[in-house]
Amino acid sequence: MRAVLFENYEQFPSLTDVPRPRPGPGEVLLRVAGAGACHSDISVYRHFKEGQPGAQKPPFVLGHENSGWVEELGEGVSDRIKVGESCLVYGPIGCGLCRKCVQGVETYCENADSLPYLAVGLGRDGGMAEYVSVPAHHLVPLGDADPIDAAPLSDAGLTPYHAIKATLPHLAGGGRHALVIGLGGLGQIGVQILRALTGATVIATDLKAEAREYAERHGAVTVGGGEHQVEEIREITGGKGVDAAFDFVGAAPTVATAAACLAQGGRLNVVGIAGGTHEFSFFTNPYEAYVTNTYWGSVAELWELVDMYRAGQIRPEVERFSMDDALEAYRKLEAGEIFGRAVVVPHGA
Amino acid sequence: MRAVLFENYEQFPSLTDVPRPRPGPGEVLLRVAGAGACHSDISVYRHFKEGQPGAQKPPFVLGHENSGWVEELGEGVSDRIKVGESCLVYGPIGCGLCRKCVQGVETYCENADSLPYLAVGLGRDGGMAEYVSVPAHHLVPLGDADPIDAAPLSDAGLTPYHAIKATLPHLAGGGRHALVIGLGGLGQIGVQILRALTGATVIATDLKAEAREYAERHGAVTVGGGEHQVEEIREITGGKGVDAAFDFVGAAPTVATAAACLAQGGRLNVVGIAGGTHEFSFFTNPYEAYVTNTYWGSVAELWELVDMYRAGQIRPEVERFSMDDALEAYRKLEAGEIFGRAVVVPHGA
Amino acid sequence: MRAVLFENYEQFPSLTDVPRPRPGPGEVLLRVAGAGACHSDISVYRHFKEGQPGAQKPPFVLGHENSGWVEELGEGVSDRIKVGESCLVYGPIGCGLCRKCVQGVETYCENADSLPYLAVGLGRDGGMAEYVSVPAHHLVPLGDADPIDAAPLSDAGLTPYHAIKATLPHLAGGGRHALVIGLGGLGQIGVQILRALTGATVIATDLKAEAREYAERHGAVTVGGGEHQVEEIREITGGKGVDAAFDFVGAAPTVATAAACLAQGGRLNVVGIAGGTHEFSFFTNPYEAYVTNTYWGSVAELWELVDMYRAGQIRPEVERFSMDDALEAYRKLEAGEIFGRAVVVPHGA
Amino acid sequence: MRAVLFENYEQFPSLTDVPRPRPGPGEVLLRVAGAGACHSDISVYRHFKEGQPGAQKPPFVLGHENSGWVEELGEGVSDRIKVGESCLVYGPIGCGLCRKCVQGVETYCENADSLPYLAVGLGRDGGMAEYVSVPAHHLVPLGDADPIDAAPLSDAGLTPYHAIKATLPHLAGGGRHALVIGLGGLGQIGVQILRALTGATVIATDLKAEAREYAERHGAVTVGGGEHQVEEIREITGGKGVDAAFDFVGAAPTVATAAACLAQGGRLNVVGIAGGTHEFSFFTNPYEAYVTNTYWGSVAELWELVDMYRAGQIRPEVERFSMDDALEAYRKLEAGEIFGRAVVVPHGA
Repeated sequence: MRAVLFENYEQFPSLTDVPRPRPGPGEVLLRVAGAGACHSDISVYRHFKEGQPGAQKPPFVLGHENSGWVEELGEGVSDRIKVGESCLVYGPIGCGLCRKCVQGVETYCENADSLPYLAVGLGRDGGMAEYVSVPAHHLVPLGDADPIDAAPLSDAGLTPYHAIKATLPHLAGGGRHALVIGLGGLGQIGVQILRALTGATVIATDLKAEAREYAERHGAVTVGGGEHQVEEIREITGGKGVDAAFDFVGAAPTVATAAACLAQGGRLNVVGIAGGTHEFSFFTNPYEAYVTNTYWGSVAELWELVDMYRAGQIRPEVERFSMDDALEAYRKLEAGEIFGRAVVVPHGA
Repeated sequence: MRAVLFENYEQFPSLTDVPRPRPGPGEVLLRVAGAGACHSDISVYRHFKEGQPGAQKPPFVLGHENSGWVEELGEGVSDRIKVGESCLVYGPIGCGLCRKCVQGVETYCENADSLPYLAVGLGRDGGMAEYVSVPAHHLVPLGDADPIDAAPLSDAGLTPYHAIKATLPHLAGGGRHALVIGLGGLGQIGVQILRALTGATVIATDLKAEAREYAERHGAVTVGGGEHQVEEIREITGGKGVDAAFDFVGAAPTVATAAACLAQGGRLNVVGIAGGTHEFSFFTNPYEAYVTNTYWGSVAELWELVDMYRAGQIRPEVERFSMDDALEAYRKLEAGEIFGRAVVVPHGA
Repeated sequence: MRAVLFENYEQFPSLTDVPRPRPGPGEVLLRVAGAGACHSDISVYRHFKEGQPGAQKPPFVLGHENSGWVEELGEGVSDRIKVGESCLVYGPIGCGLCRKCVQGVETYCENADSLPYLAVGLGRDGGMAEYVSVPAHHLVPLGDADPIDAAPLSDAGLTPYHAIKATLPHLAGGGRHALVIGLGGLGQIGVQILRALTGATVIATDLKAEAREYAERHGAVTVGGGEHQVEEIREITGGKGVDAAFDFVGAAPTVATAAACLAQGGRLNVVGIAGGTHEFSFFTNPYEAYVTNTYWGSVAELWELVDMYRAGQIRPEVERFSMDDALEAYRKLEAGEIFGRAVVVPHGA
Repeated sequence: MRAVLFENYEQFPSLTDVPRPRPGPGEVLLRVAGAGACHSDISVYRHFKEGQPGAQKPPFVLGHENSGWVEELGEGVSDRIKVGESCLVYGPIGCGLCRKCVQGVETYCENADSLPYLAVGLGRDGGMAEYVSVPAHHLVPLGDADPIDAAPLSDAGLTPYHAIKATLPHLAGGGRHALVIGLGGLGQIGVQILRALTGATVIATDLKAEAREYAERHGAVTVGGGEHQVEEIREITGGKGVDAAFDFVGAAPTVATAAACLAQGGRLNVVGIAGGTHEFSFFTNPYEAYVTNTYWGSVAELWELVDMYRAGQIRPEVERFSMDDALEAYRKLEAGEIFGRAVVVPHGA
């Protein structure tokens, strides 16, 4: 079958033929409906060097945002899963045995340091191919909802969902304000989730006017960059600051902006991995406010996100690419020419 | 000044002249903007007998849903409160000293049994008059929002807000369902609050088609009465039942319906005082579901509700009556001819 | 190997020879250290009839409270699990694929109605034998703690732990009171857990003086039966009532007592399955108090309970029986002659 | 009456005669039982300069940790408060009207910037005198518990209680670990509160061996200073780190130690005001861990703390000084010669 293969560190992937996988015990083979191309893939094949923290050893098929139709069940898999059924894939794979994994939080596996791979498509073969094999309990049924548009939910949806879910107590009730920094794939879905699940005024910011306009159409109040950005944001909040800030960039200036906008008791959730730092001091921190970080999400959260998708509460912005054009998707992603999310559709749209 | 006076048990109130009140120490005199007529007033003057639990000793001016403009400050009141300022009034008045009162939850005053009155307009003079005197810390500033439409928020808004706020953990996240039974004044505002603060599918039910249509225009999915009511509701939830039910009637059939619709872990909040009962059994109760009751709300919650009102997230449906027509408001209320809330405007709209 | 076999409905089990099980894919074979005899086993072999709700189809080996040493790994099981390692077994087994199972809450499996068995030892072969095979991710490592005394934690410990964990928000802070009704195996461990995890005054009650004395030695304040029981309990709380009540009996009189002792906002958790009911009414229920039911617990909770056991915070009261005397354990259990928990030790103590 | 008066910035207070206060409207005059001497008093009279943030304008009587017997009621105060009754005083005083003050969280008054004083004894006359006048709703009844030992609870007790109460969700359940840094007056009470309210292993550290020994007698596991401090602490936690850390010093090295000990999802609560900073980075922060700050506490929390004191769960270590020796208490405090808390007893012990 054809697949987008990451062959060597610091080398652009290739579109090539690989053997069709066979589902192991407890696994399910999916005929891939959609596979999202994610910025972190670029780090995988472009930036990481062997042995570096976060590096995933090649070769493997890319694609950690996957949906598909059940093709074949591996040994020991319950026939409750029906061939032909449409599913989304929970990507992270931990040891499966520790106290985090047994409750479906494989992102925070206690044995993460000694795992051979991080996720489907991150260290083991992913979904940017005609078929992919995944653990049976990582499947979330999609019913009759479009599986192709759903693909990005696995990461670009689940990552903001997890951050927002953890923050809901800060946003519970009237008069709350939330700030979203960075309106790419994750940030835009983040705006939609916040608007659907909370009564907070959602303030969004990005350097690109097009991205701000898109967020406005989904109910955000937007603010541009510039020296008065913090003042403008605080003014929208009536001076008190935001109860929650989500930084999908995570660079020094965005973390600084977010921290400067926090209300007393507010929570700043850094999601973006640009590596910006923030200096906490008792005397400058609004009382009981704090900064934290979150990574991807849990399988139970993916079930809830699919509920939202099936109910029409979120709609990822997707640009579809055929298998022939899969590498073009990555080229455009690197060039910053993708708005929303690029999804490869191996079997056509 | 003119006022609607409750003069004797089991006697319709009169429109009469009473002395204009003077604000005591720690109190503020308000020029009344709006005073809502509430069903519980009817119980006060029509049904209660002396000495009965809940009875409030006449005579006193009715009106426990009040808004107004600051007219005069009593002794010891901070000049942070400005004459002319527009405010909503938190009605419940406890002992002011117990552990519940000191945190602004005067509804659950630990000395409730020995209090001379329950609230502004319930045992002491209320706002159905040209002026009313209230404790300074019971005022919630309205800014430039309409104070007349705001009046019902004091009770018809705060009561569902408190019930919903306590229930938010059950509704946090995707895929949740909430049920609202009884679409009168409280239920309609309840629908608006649920739609604004949660992502839950809001299912609403009432015998009146007009009330259901109004709820639908505010985003609810509605179900009528009839023998298949429970099935219809459960079907909307995909079979699992509702995560939260709010019964604004509280009669035996509505409590039974609500209980029959509960999901595992669901919460049924009885708000209405029609006295219906529910029999709990280990074997029939969906695991970890439960039934509880709430009464009115806290002052901090009223601040949050005013935030929602000022942000345009809730809009009480109000029918305005001049002081001359104040008794007519109660007559129509008794006759079931008020849709939404009757508000008396002593100084004109 | 020898095993305690449930052969037919309404028939006392037999001690007999059965083939040693082989671990299936994803399973682990344990050499059994201890297997607890539970009251629910008596229901299984004594009371249930074919087709009745809760009935588990014979024949199968009893024992759903198990600990053991790893003997052999089934296909696909990670070698992180080491032969000889000492483990406790999480008993409940759901479909493994639904949203509850994937987060380790197999007790509330969404497909429970169509499952062939409920748990290890409840519908499929359990641990009252020399060997037992269980899913690998159901193992909780015991380290160097005694595996025999640990066995009852699987049910007699996990069941109260789950109820208490869900109730901790009601008991968080100073001045709280908890009530434990029924001081058998579960209730006594419940007292220990409450004393360790909360600052609440733990009030315990049972008809047996011996059971009350044991609870007192573990830090409870006890109350006997009799007509003034409710008054005595309320007096200990200074009149306000208890913030949490755990009814490990669940009969009509115990549920009534517990409900009568509830404080405003209190939670009554019925754990015992004696089938008592409680009538909720808006006017008699202390505001925001409620009654609910819980069943067993989650795998993550079992990890936490093992942490407590390893830290010496809980110590089940165990009476050990050799394999030869296994049936005697059930006889004494039926006769009410077991204080604490009977544990069968197939390979000696 | 005699009082410890702060007369001028940067000047040691004097023991002098001042007029006995009269209770204003809504206030109560107390005959002082005990008044604690607090380190922050030293900042007030020794370090602050006029106009500096935090400076409190002299002259005023010191003492913000007060207990006493009701002597006289001001105008409008309910006669529920009985002359002779023994009470603890909630110190912080906000505007009384904002959304924080109306729920009894006067520490976070929204108008704090424009207040004339911060608390009883901080900007307005405090309790280091024979009598003190305080707002009626700031009294917490002590019943028959010793009012002198209780005095430090107002600050040295309430400050750790508030921090710990906010942290309880992190410590709910088995297998948790808490770290207390700094075993002075607040830290020692912090250890007692943690031991009483949670099942966490409490790890405590201080440079003074005497302080560590005292903490050990109250159930803490202690660790000294030195280069291996972090390793030793992490080892006690089995490598995972602490779920909660309370830094009662707040200097750069203690904040760094605490941050280095945090587990995934842990909370570091800086209470001490030594001004140390902490640099947050996505890549070094354990996922979902965070650092925050808290200040003093709420009046409702003081009620709960008094419940603990009356139940014998906490016992402040107190050294008593007569009014004649009141200045000596401050001298010893400055010299680091007070273990626990110095309490001035104007009317004898």
